[in-house]
Formats: sequence, C-alpha cells, structure tokens
Amino acid sequence: MTIRKVNLADMFGRFQDQWSPKIVGEVNDSLVKLTKLQGEFVWHHHDREDELFLVVKGRLRLKLRDKELGPGEFAIIPHGVEHLPIADEETHVLLFEPKSTLNTGNIHNERTVAELDRL
Amino acid sequence: MTIRKVNLADMFGRFQDQWSPKIVGEVNDSLVKLTKLQGEFVWHHHDREDELFLVVKGRLRLKLRDKELGPGEFAIIPHGVEHLPIADEETHVLLFEPKSTLNTGNIHNERTVAELDRL
Repeated sequence: MTIRKVNLADMFGRFQDQWSPKIVGEVNDSLVKLTKLQGEFVWHHHDREDELFLVVKGRLRLKLRDKELGPGEFAIIPHGVEHLPIADEETHVLLFEPKSTLNTGNIHNERTVAELDRL
Repeated sequence: MTIRKVNLADMFGRFQDQWSPKIVGEVNDSLVKLTKLQGEFVWHHHDREDELFLVVKGRLRLKLRDKELGPGEFAIIPHGVEHLPIADEETHVLLFEPKSTLNTGNIHNERTVAELDRL
C-alpha cells in the first residue's frame, strides 16, 4: 500500500487553468480537489452535496452574505444554498466534496467541467 | 442559512489539549476535525474509513514508511492500513474522515476519545 504525500504548493504548480478542479485524493466516498479561481463564477447550488472551500492562497469572496475567505480559512456550503465564488486575484482553493459533485451544481454551461483531471 | 467562516488559526487557539480531535464542520457524511498532536500515538488502523491528515503547523511523521508531513502537506491513509502518528513538536492537523471514525481505530485504550468537543 503506497501512501502518497501531497504538497499543496507543488500540486498547484502542476496546472495553470482556472475554474477547472483537479482531483488530488479520494477519501471514502469523497474527493479532494484543487482549483485555481480568478474572477466571478456562476450562481449555482448543489441539490444534494455540501461543499467545503479551504483557501490555500489568495482571497475568495463567497456571495452569500459577501463572506470572504483568506488563506487558512474555510467555509462549508450546505447543499441547496445558492453561492457565487469570486476571486479578485488568482486564488488557490482546496475543495472537499462527494464524488458526485459537479462544479456548476444545478447549472450546465460553458464553465461546467464534467471530466476532471487527476494530479 | 448561516454559513460560518472558519479561521484555522483562531480555532486552534480555542483548545490546548493534545490528541483529542475537535469537530469544526460537517460535510455530507463526514466531519472536519482539528487536533493538536505532540509525541507518539498508538499503532492502529481503521477497518472501514480512510483518513486525511493535512498539516497546518508543525511536522507530522506517519510511521508507515516514515513519511513526514509539513505545513501545506497531506496524506490519505486508506482503511485497513496500520499507521502511527508521531509529532516531535506540537503539530496542528486538520482531519477529514467519516462521522464513524474513532481516533484510535481498532484499538481502545486511554488515548481513545469517544465523545468529541465541537468548536
């Protein structure tokens, strides 16, 4: 059984594209994903899945009540709650969510990423 | 729906006891926990649950193949794999694991914490 050590900074160095979550680990029925965000996403919610956002670098505004997350801060968005992630500068985020979660939730548009890369 | 912003440093400031995971969030069927570790734990495994260790501060040695994790590094221990966490200095760790996970896994001894505080 090989246990992989994951260095977040190294992993964020392996990709450049924004708004396209990458899988870096599986824990039970959930995935750990890394994503780079900059600019404004799309209002959406997830019908069934809660979603954890942990900011590793940068600042993430979550338009619920304009909550803003900095490095070392996280928030959990319960399923069903509309949210709009906005990052003024490029921001590095670790996500924790079930395997079934789609990045745009209930919305399907050009920002939807159905097939995620693995790092 | 109130979304809580969690600052990891603030939360680690709210407790002093070591080897006693605290719940800081629920994501679907899983819990996010914070724990302070120093010294050597007990060899154990979890029959059913994978376990993620993300080091926030300090250094964590995981005796599998003496893998050591620093800040911004994580490893996922699959269920069934024996492991022994060791922290030479006080080390702050974020855990991600199912609600059913017991800190000492298959072992029940004086280091077992059955009832976790919430922060």
